[in-house]
Amino acid sequence: MANTGKIFRSEEDSLGSIDVPAHALWGAQTQRAVENFAISGIRIGQFDTLIVALGMIKKAAARANGKLGALAPEKVAAIEAACNALIAGGHRRAFPIDAIQGGAGTSVNMNVNEVIANLANEKAGQGRGSYGFIHPNDDVNRAQSTNDVYPSAVKLSLVLASKRLEAVLEKLAASFEDRAGAFAGVVKLGRTQLQDAVPMTLGQEFGAFATTLRKDVAAIRAAVPALCELNLGGTAVGTGLNAPEGYAAIVIEELAGISGLPVQLAGDMLEASWDMGAFVSLSGLLKRIATKLSKIANDLRLLSSGPRGGIGEIRLPEVQPGSSIMPGKVNPVIPEVVNQVCFQVMGNDVAITMAAEAGQLQLNAMEPLIAFNLHVSLQLLERAIITFDERCVSGIVADGARCRAHLDASVVTATALVPVIGYRRSARLAKDALAKHRTVSELALEENLIGPNGLALLDPMKLAFPHAGPPAGES
Amino acid sequence: MANTGKIFRSEEDSLGSIDVPAHALWGAQTQRAVENFAISGIRIGQFDTLIVALGMIKKAAARANGKLGALAPEKVAAIEAACNALIAGGHRRAFPIDAIQGGAGTSVNMNVNEVIANLANEKAGQGRGSYGFIHPNDDVNRAQSTNDVYPSAVKLSLVLASKRLEAVLEKLAASFEDRAGAFAGVVKLGRTQLQDAVPMTLGQEFGAFATTLRKDVAAIRAAVPALCELNLGGTAVGTGLNAPEGYAAIVIEELAGISGLPVQLAGDMLEASWDMGAFVSLSGLLKRIATKLSKIANDLRLLSSGPRGGIGEIRLPEVQPGSSIMPGKVNPVIPEVVNQVCFQVMGNDVAITMAAEAGQLQLNAMEPLIAFNLHVSLQLLERAIITFDERCVSGIVADGARCRAHLDASVVTATALVPVIGYRRSARLAKDALAKHRTVSELALEENLIGPNGLALLDPMKLAFPHAGPPAGES
Amino acid sequence: MANTGKIFRSEEDSLGSIDVPAHALWGAQTQRAVENFAISGIRIGQFDTLIVALGMIKKAAARANGKLGALAPEKVAAIEAACNALIAGGHRRAFPIDAIQGGAGTSVNMNVNEVIANLANEKAGQGRGSYGFIHPNDDVNRAQSTNDVYPSAVKLSLVLASKRLEAVLEKLAASFEDRAGAFAGVVKLGRTQLQDAVPMTLGQEFGAFATTLRKDVAAIRAAVPALCELNLGGTAVGTGLNAPEGYAAIVIEELAGISGLPVQLAGDMLEASWDMGAFVSLSGLLKRIATKLSKIANDLRLLSSGPRGGIGEIRLPEVQPGSSIMPGKVNPVIPEVVNQVCFQVMGNDVAITMAAEAGQLQLNAMEPLIAFNLHVSLQLLERAIITFDERCVSGIVADGARCRAHLDASVVTATALVPVIGYRRSARLAKDALAKHRTVSELALEENLIGPNGLALLDPMKLAFPHAGPPAGES
Amino acid sequence: MANTGKIFRSEEDSLGSIDVPAHALWGAQTQRAVENFAISGIRIGQFDTLIVALGMIKKAAARANGKLGALAPEKVAAIEAACNALIAGGHRRAFPIDAIQGGAGTSVNMNVNEVIANLANEKAGQGRGSYGFIHPNDDVNRAQSTNDVYPSAVKLSLVLASKRLEAVLEKLAASFEDRAGAFAGVVKLGRTQLQDAVPMTLGQEFGAFATTLRKDVAAIRAAVPALCELNLGGTAVGTGLNAPEGYAAIVIEELAGISGLPVQLAGDMLEASWDMGAFVSLSGLLKRIATKLSKIANDLRLLSSGPRGGIGEIRLPEVQPGSSIMPGKVNPVIPEVVNQVCFQVMGNDVAITMAAEAGQLQLNAMEPLIAFNLHVSLQLLERAIITFDERCVSGIVADGARCRAHLDASVVTATALVPVIGYRRSARLAKDALAKHRTVSELALEENLIGPNGLALLDPMKLAFPHAGPPAGES
Repeated sequence: MANTGKIFRSEEDSLGSIDVPAHALWGAQTQRAVENFAISGIRIGQFDTLIVALGMIKKAAARANGKLGALAPEKVAAIEAACNALIAGGHRRAFPIDAIQGGAGTSVNMNVNEVIANLANEKAGQGRGSYGFIHPNDDVNRAQSTNDVYPSAVKLSLVLASKRLEAVLEKLAASFEDRAGAFAGVVKLGRTQLQDAVPMTLGQEFGAFATTLRKDVAAIRAAVPALCELNLGGTAVGTGLNAPEGYAAIVIEELAGISGLPVQLAGDMLEASWDMGAFVSLSGLLKRIATKLSKIANDLRLLSSGPRGGIGEIRLPEVQPGSSIMPGKVNPVIPEVVNQVCFQVMGNDVAITMAAEAGQLQLNAMEPLIAFNLHVSLQLLERAIITFDERCVSGIVADGARCRAHLDASVVTATALVPVIGYRRSARLAKDALAKHRTVSELALEENLIGPNGLALLDPMKLAFPHAGPPAGES
Repeated sequence: MANTGKIFRSEEDSLGSIDVPAHALWGAQTQRAVENFAISGIRIGQFDTLIVALGMIKKAAARANGKLGALAPEKVAAIEAACNALIAGGHRRAFPIDAIQGGAGTSVNMNVNEVIANLANEKAGQGRGSYGFIHPNDDVNRAQSTNDVYPSAVKLSLVLASKRLEAVLEKLAASFEDRAGAFAGVVKLGRTQLQDAVPMTLGQEFGAFATTLRKDVAAIRAAVPALCELNLGGTAVGTGLNAPEGYAAIVIEELAGISGLPVQLAGDMLEASWDMGAFVSLSGLLKRIATKLSKIANDLRLLSSGPRGGIGEIRLPEVQPGSSIMPGKVNPVIPEVVNQVCFQVMGNDVAITMAAEAGQLQLNAMEPLIAFNLHVSLQLLERAIITFDERCVSGIVADGARCRAHLDASVVTATALVPVIGYRRSARLAKDALAKHRTVSELALEENLIGPNGLALLDPMKLAFPHAGPPAGES
Repeated sequence: MANTGKIFRSEEDSLGSIDVPAHALWGAQTQRAVENFAISGIRIGQFDTLIVALGMIKKAAARANGKLGALAPEKVAAIEAACNALIAGGHRRAFPIDAIQGGAGTSVNMNVNEVIANLANEKAGQGRGSYGFIHPNDDVNRAQSTNDVYPSAVKLSLVLASKRLEAVLEKLAASFEDRAGAFAGVVKLGRTQLQDAVPMTLGQEFGAFATTLRKDVAAIRAAVPALCELNLGGTAVGTGLNAPEGYAAIVIEELAGISGLPVQLAGDMLEASWDMGAFVSLSGLLKRIATKLSKIANDLRLLSSGPRGGIGEIRLPEVQPGSSIMPGKVNPVIPEVVNQVCFQVMGNDVAITMAAEAGQLQLNAMEPLIAFNLHVSLQLLERAIITFDERCVSGIVADGARCRAHLDASVVTATALVPVIGYRRSARLAKDALAKHRTVSELALEENLIGPNGLALLDPMKLAFPHAGPPAGES
Repeated sequence: MANTGKIFRSEEDSLGSIDVPAHALWGAQTQRAVENFAISGIRIGQFDTLIVALGMIKKAAARANGKLGALAPEKVAAIEAACNALIAGGHRRAFPIDAIQGGAGTSVNMNVNEVIANLANEKAGQGRGSYGFIHPNDDVNRAQSTNDVYPSAVKLSLVLASKRLEAVLEKLAASFEDRAGAFAGVVKLGRTQLQDAVPMTLGQEFGAFATTLRKDVAAIRAAVPALCELNLGGTAVGTGLNAPEGYAAIVIEELAGISGLPVQLAGDMLEASWDMGAFVSLSGLLKRIATKLSKIANDLRLLSSGPRGGIGEIRLPEVQPGSSIMPGKVNPVIPEVVNQVCFQVMGNDVAITMAAEAGQLQLNAMEPLIAFNLHVSLQLLERAIITFDERCVSGIVADGARCRAHLDASVVTATALVPVIGYRRSARLAKDALAKHRTVSELALEENLIGPNGLALLDPMKLAFPHAGPPAGES
């Protein structure tokens, strides 16, 4: 558009005319949505994978329309070029609509339709807001409805975002594994119900953290297929009205090529138009990841409690002073922020559940909130995991002496005597040891319950690995 | 009914005839509901306060109808007598409908209508199931609708049940206060973010538990007025159709007399027919109580952790052996069950929220689930609190030596030096003490940062009560 | 036990002696738990699959111990026989402990240990409470800990219970499919955001319900493998202390044979001792099923609203009178109870989430609440689905005339004109038709926008199936 | 600071030195927190009331210290001036820390300490980052701890923000009342359980919306006192260590004067240091508001459903085109966004609950998440309510003819005949009328159940106001 110095241009839609910022890549319907929804302050353009996904779908649609003769080749080319810009990460600020919005995604779909039309028209030498060459509805949105484009774009976007989560989660698991290796020789008390339990190593403890996170890495991967079942071509309610014969099959094939993802058509396009099952499942998975991360953060806070009046078996990296009043205090601030992110993800899951339940008849009008929360939860988890890894987990050190001291002061080795002297006598021995502040082995020897070579039975590292020696590299 | 040996009698309602157990005090509509709703296995008769509340309301209605000449005196008397039996706690097994049910409470209302009619008719010498004298709808339900009776009964029932909660909560608070007194002289580490913080007494710690619970005792009392705003007389949608002129004012006055509670008419009877606000608030309060109880249970589990590898500053009563494999282990099973009840109450709050949100137009059809969860949560909390009090809190003992040892090993007294030697030097001193396994006072003396009489500054009991001596009775 | 007329017998455990009802199959530790936990009123014996699962595991353990020479053949046989009784469904009342309990399942494990011991001893001619032949800990629990037995039993139980859910869900889906067939020729308005949308058939609408539920039937099946990963042989914290060399591999093989399920050992026994991931995932799935069922129930209530002032396109079976005051009113009570069950399942999911997050170090002490809620949610869903199917869905009838009348009164066919006359003119036509209370086809003909044979374009059944004729059997 | 062209300046804290942007008003500890917490992208400075509240508290503290001789008058004056700038709304960008953070608010407290110190020092002619005159800890934070300042500031901030919510909620209630007045003469069907019920007016329906919201306006006001109970002067754990004798009483008096709010000291300063009860209650109230708003939004969507195939009794303002494919479609996008905000508030409540439960011992380290969610929920509700009011509610119009048509087609007037001809005959009449598509009055006349002047009984407006004429101004 020639810079005529105007601040606004006037555009028209079926409700009449409206002022749009003269420079804006968006048009009338986006503008209405911006004005209607001043809610969260978070714009859809902030979810970068969502814009990429929309670009991919619009590109696939243009190609499919082209192949079916429903769109002239030069129009296809123009739309494709604009889509490529979006896929490449451009024009994020052209998506200003609040992420919490009414209209079941219509405004998002029209925003991308308008931006693509304006990009294409501008390249063709026409001003922004003049839709002479490429029209947002008739061309960019051809054979499409919000009701098939929007759910498909959200799903695709979530696949892209979940791959990032997968990567950082694997990295965190690797850090725990690294620490597990470093702590392989640190023998210590196990604890169940916060009470002293049988011996294990700190390496085993940290290794279990790696294991549990890797199960979720796999679970993220397993969530992809359901997110790749799309209702493209179903248009308004899934019947495919106004899409050309054959459109659905072609658009999905094109999209597979463009995205490199195993997208496929839903078996029941009507169901796929309103069903939120894949989103509910993804949120359930994010919540599951959150329960594990929060549990781990809690464990790290417990194990590092003290330094004198707590367990104090590990030390976390010191990343900031801990108190404005107590000198020298350092707090586990990184696990704390991980906990809080996890609680937020759990709360977001409830909001998603409610939104999913609120679908009515042929559509779920609450899908924008579902999309919002899934994107936010993915981002929160991604950032919290990176922070957890880099500013805490990878720098944890063990206090092996304290680990050993706790173990030696305890009476848990009595368990190992059960097969030798029975449950009842073992229990009595344990109670005596506790009461007299003696060790189980001292008393067992004194009472001739075991001979001197019976002491081997009570070697903590043996108890931690009763069926085999400790892994290579351990003391 | 003459015992003719039949197992069933036949009754009729607007859908036709149905077999009812010959002995049953209920009738056709109750029977249909029993068959329609085989869901949770929990019968409405299990919520004893609900049956009492229904009895009170039906009695008040009969009296009001009598005063207005809408019901003959002998009918009033017969209905009153039946209601009195319910209020006295009788006939609980005559309320067999599942507590999770459709129909917005209609089945509950008809259940009580039918039971009262049968009790009255039987007393008048008529068989069960013959409604010649007293008719469930035309007499017992006269001037009423489920839509004003049921919400009012639920509210009244919750007031009665919440009084029981109030009592046990106060008793638990008193137990904490008692322990606070016993622990007044036990000086110990404070802990913030699980890290050693400035000194306090165990008495202060337990006293805070009493304080926080008493705030909720007061909050329960403050919740009563909203639960006492009733829509009696509003009938089906709040307009009062089919209730005689003046009925609402009289029935509420009668109910106030019968119940001894400050019941009053809602200002907007239409709103009061569908609004769930008072229930949502009560659930919010129960959830708040749950967050506090769970926090306290967590604290007790932390403070009693060990016996050797944890904090171990208090000991909980031993109520059952702790392990099928580890001899001598005893676990904090009572705080654990308290935690779990609290989680359930929090989950129930979400179910209540969803049900409250799902009201439509002139009624909330999901009210039975709200009633179910509030009654269940109140019962769970009541029982958990009694258990907590009797089997755990009242028997807690302190390990004063361990409290003192933790405190002496720590460097938190450095805080008290800040006003004397500044934050920076205090911090350095604390770090040195930690690193060298020395005490802050030793180092401060050595470095001449304080003189010998400066040691008074670091007296832990002084630090716990900087502005006054400890309360009477402390050492 | 000889009936000596005593009401109680005295038993002993490590905390001392305790009175046990003389007739009881359980022993001291069960009795302590019964007294400690009077919370929910729901006993563990009410979860029938849980007792079966415990029986299977104890049987597998006895066999494994036998094979390893750790238990004498006659003891193995005696334990097996007792387990078989439990697996066959017997002795449910011998499991009286409250389902909401502290102790991380220890009481459940000891309950089954004690019952099996008593059954075996009694058969061997010894009195209940005398553990001379088979001892609960030393024999029944040999090589085991609560911490491997209990999580494994809960998982197994959930697999058994979920198979029942799978069956009723498939049956409900089949009913929807049956109705879809019956409604294949009923053409009607689609509705998005509660506003009139493009045509479809009632058959398509009901078919989508079948589709969505069958996706969850498949999802239930897909949840089984994670629930079949067990930590048997890990004993107290996963290290396998006190289990004989080789025990884990044998016990899992035995259990596979006994249960017929694809059970296998967890890869990391320490992680498997505390990880609740499989439970969180199952709960997430139950919640997902709940969102779908609730959405469907909402749709049925909407579609059957009226009979005069609502949509009224379908009629639900009348299962009970609807009002104590409004004659002739019939309400959608079955969908309403389905909604409520769904809300409860969603609330239970939050309780489960909180309990899963609260695990600490080598165990999750809140697992009983997780087990409780999963069993309850499975039961609630199972019963609600059966009720929904039998008392509502299978008897739904269509009001084809009303469906058609809504469609004919609407202007949604204007959409089909978009490819012919463009979006803008179609929109104008739709608005005119609405304003003038005319039909789109009338106006389009009048304005010569289409010719008489253009009317075929607007045939609703064509619009519902734009790309193919309706399925065989439709008009 | 003289602009020396440097991009960073170096500052030091107890962990060592760190680069701070040369221009920054904040210092070392803020900088560490910015780097540690890159989580949500939402900065604490975005919660404007929080910065105001911090300014007020720091000002009150300075004054109190001044009065007690703990701070020199020129220091008091310098700190006060800086605080005034914050209270006036300045320097929001000087608060860059992520709102989701670890450290229990320490970073927030240090951020404000550093900003105030820098503002004061700069005014005194010293460079940013040089703390020669006013020191963040020793002066600005004197007699304070994060643990008393932060919870107090959050509470104060929430009081300020809740006043804004109160105002917009009252405005929305007024709009509903205005519409109720406009609709006073529009008689219509009531609906319970989505089924036709007895008559009422649209004015009554909208009046109930006003009523229910005004109850929450009052509830917001009632929440203020609990939020005004502060633990200022309690310092680290509530014992008041390092605060001068008398400080607490003076600081609270000063704060009352500065804020104009009825702040007072908590009765138990230790409890007040960790208790989250007031926050849980406020969140419960926001959730309650959300359930009501969502219910109302649902009702408006139902009542405006159609235009042809739904209820269609009201019309919402058209604020944007509704479909990218269906011409002329307009959707209820504003109620939809209200629903979604409400779901988010409900989800946030769960996150808050979890965070409140997770407090440990003398502090709740998860308080930043509680503060985050309460501020976000308040903002979301405030904006959604304004949007709802201005873009939807205030422009709603009635379709009186359709209201009347639904009523006339229904059989609900049969209820009014119950007192005259009994429940049974009324029910039969209603069923006949439904079956024969006749009206109840026609049939009643035909069958001589009522005489011609009995028709007055069935006048809908009479039925809507059985006990009095409609309010003044109605037809």
